Amino acid sequence: MEVGVGLIGLGNVGLGALQILVENSQSITDKLGFSLHVRAVCSRHVGSKKLPSLDGAVVRTSDWQDVVRNPDIDIVVELIGGTATAGHVIEAALREQKSVVTANKELIALRGAELWSLANQNGVNLAMEASVAGGIPIHTVLREGIAGDRVIELYGILNGTSNFILTEIEKSNAAFDAVLAEAQQLGYAEADPSADVDGLDARSKLAILAALAFGERLSPSDIYTEGIRRIMPVDFQYAHQLQHTIRLLCLARQSDGGLLLSVRPSLIPQSAILAHVTGAYNAVWIRGTYGEDTFYYGRGAGSRPTGVAVVSDIMRVAREIRFGSPERVSPFAHDRLGEFRPLPVSVQELPYYLRFRVEDKAGIIATLATILAKHRIGIDAVLQLPREDWRDLPFVITTEPAKEQSIREALVDIRESDFLVEAPFAMPMQRGF
Amino acid sequence: MEVGVGLIGLGNVGLGALQILVENSQSITDKLGFSLHVRAVCSRHVGSKKLPSLDGAVVRTSDWQDVVRNPDIDIVVELIGGTATAGHVIEAALREQKSVVTANKELIALRGAELWSLANQNGVNLAMEASVAGGIPIHTVLREGIAGDRVIELYGILNGTSNFILTEIEKSNAAFDAVLAEAQQLGYAEADPSADVDGLDARSKLAILAALAFGERLSPSDIYTEGIRRIMPVDFQYAHQLQHTIRLLCLARQSDGGLLLSVRPSLIPQSAILAHVTGAYNAVWIRGTYGEDTFYYGRGAGSRPTGVAVVSDIMRVAREIRFGSPERVSPFAHDRLGEFRPLPVSVQELPYYLRFRVEDKAGIIATLATILAKHRIGIDAVLQLPREDWRDLPFVITTEPAKEQSIREALVDIRESDFLVEAPFAMPMQRGF
Repeated sequence: MEVGVGLIGLGNVGLGALQILVENSQSITDKLGFSLHVRAVCSRHVGSKKLPSLDGAVVRTSDWQDVVRNPDIDIVVELIGGTATAGHVIEAALREQKSVVTANKELIALRGAELWSLANQNGVNLAMEASVAGGIPIHTVLREGIAGDRVIELYGILNGTSNFILTEIEKSNAAFDAVLAEAQQLGYAEADPSADVDGLDARSKLAILAALAFGERLSPSDIYTEGIRRIMPVDFQYAHQLQHTIRLLCLARQSDGGLLLSVRPSLIPQSAILAHVTGAYNAVWIRGTYGEDTFYYGRGAGSRPTGVAVVSDIMRVAREIRFGSPERVSPFAHDRLGEFRPLPVSVQELPYYLRFRVEDKAGIIATLATILAKHRIGIDAVLQLPREDWRDLPFVITTEPAKEQSIREALVDIRESDFLVEAPFAMPMQRGF
Repeated sequence: MEVGVGLIGLGNVGLGALQILVENSQSITDKLGFSLHVRAVCSRHVGSKKLPSLDGAVVRTSDWQDVVRNPDIDIVVELIGGTATAGHVIEAALREQKSVVTANKELIALRGAELWSLANQNGVNLAMEASVAGGIPIHTVLREGIAGDRVIELYGILNGTSNFILTEIEKSNAAFDAVLAEAQQLGYAEADPSADVDGLDARSKLAILAALAFGERLSPSDIYTEGIRRIMPVDFQYAHQLQHTIRLLCLARQSDGGLLLSVRPSLIPQSAILAHVTGAYNAVWIRGTYGEDTFYYGRGAGSRPTGVAVVSDIMRVAREIRFGSPERVSPFAHDRLGEFRPLPVSVQELPYYLRFRVEDKAGIIATLATILAKHRIGIDAVLQLPREDWRDLPFVITTEPAKEQSIREALVDIRESDFLVEAPFAMPMQRGF
């Protein structure tokens, strides 16, 4: 029995996956013991696409229904992205009892559990390795590799664009806007960079990983999310003084009383392996009850790394089609639902990094110290870089571990002061990895 | 249908796996959608073992045949270790058409391909995640996670004991013998440390990983292997001067003409993530044709981390028993055999670190430089730490990239010199990760 594959969407990832299926077909056949056959490719502009030469008769169409209804196709690969058409494609394919492979983080984060149920009802599979951290096989790790463990904490650098921008600021001391413009020119950032630099892309990925790791049905909008637009080069200078660096950190941590989730720029110790993730790379750190710490690192995106994830999923699903039923328990609810409750970030207790830009006046530190003391927040250090032009120079206060709620309340009080040039900027100092 | 499990061997890993199966059973059942049942445990001294309380009737025996022949058992877990009895256990279990889960690196490195064939003939599975890099699910990654890729290079730190010893020497500046004694006291090293510090344990693991990654049937004895006994604290001082550190590096690299394999102490750049693997941790770096670089890190051993690998394998095999046939292509021959040929390490071209201990005589550097020049080896740097007592102080020459064969021939010539206190010590300076 042969297994037929249909690809819908021939953008960056679609062309990468197709290239691997064609170029690497001998190795794939050797590993599987049978061949995969691409039977159809679909794209709005299929006529203008330069495709690798495909064996046998391959339907080229601009209508996705031709793929979903094709009786020679067992696996539909959805690589359109977005939540509208892609949702229709996946639903239709599953109802036609075809397994689906997708790279669609946004759709899976929003509707993963529902679509998985639909797949299960139809006796087929829904595979989504490529939806998070492109080249890192993190789904496989959570689903099979460390399935016997129970995850306690998961930290991730899940957006390559913002990691590239942050590490460029760190390296070159250039301002966010300048580095963003450079990243856009290099093709590392989109014309509208919001999904990347405002943390929304990372949030979708964290929602998926947290669902797989903790079995919770999460809504991405429930995750506290902050982007990297406020990061200044001086923040890295202060962070380095503290033997830390700054990353857009995704966090899912089981605490007393529930699951804490956030996406936000955070200080992390330079001694942590996560601090060595630079450029457009992604990484995931997992702490398990029994297996302790494991760490996974690779390309966060890119045509061929994400293509590997797509093709590896196609191979796994093809094996199931060939050798057995894909009946499985939903990866979105493998622990009992209700065991974890999303916690508000405000309950988190950590040291904080507080950056202030002020006018040159007397008594500023005294005022800030008084307000922090009122909220029972201990000061760990006051940092000020030497500079000729004192005016407008940001300085930093780091705190003893404090409840984020207290920090927030203190910052509300501080905002009433007349010496602030802009609202204070707070980042948690994450520890323990 | 329930799936019955029998454990043979209740040492460190056996007790860890059993603890996880009992304590984490609800999570395991939730993920699988059915329960695992431990039906028998076997150990030479089963009466004296303190076991977690097990549900239902559990056979406790000191005769492994009672487990292998038990009709209620579908999965036999071999955790005895060694190649003698363990080999009989696995063969007998496979012939009884029971799937086998094992942590036995030595046996799998020696007889993996043969045992896998036997499993296949009997329509059952042989799972071995726990045989390499305890807490890191590296088999799952190679078998499924990045199955669509074609591996070009693989680097590993695969022996936790020697990594612990090396990083202790680095940290404390103490001599190898003193650190080894400390590691033995702490239980990190065995009374007979040879398997760890002479690289034999790492060699078995590299043989398994290389077989999985490259589809080659490898004999561990074909792998060039050197241990860490000659490393001195001063080597770390010189390495740090060169912005490098030293690790016992396992390497499998596809070069022109074949596959190059080695286990040996090597200099690696401090900028590499691998340089940040300290203590008893393990790590694997993989470069794929399409997915580029990925990196995996975790506990190399330990009752519970390795127990997670065993339990995750049990879960995967149990799913196959429950939902479909485990018929698979051998992981030991998934690429066409013969495509890779083990290459002699002597063809490797790298910069080398050469350490000399000499008597105080005139003209030593001139003599060494002349011999190296004769073999067309360029000198990159001559390093000598300042020290009061010059006598017996090792100094170092680093070379431009050179064929290892040339280095070896030069060292043979150098050994004829009358100023050497001991044979020169050479390490490659690995790059590219």
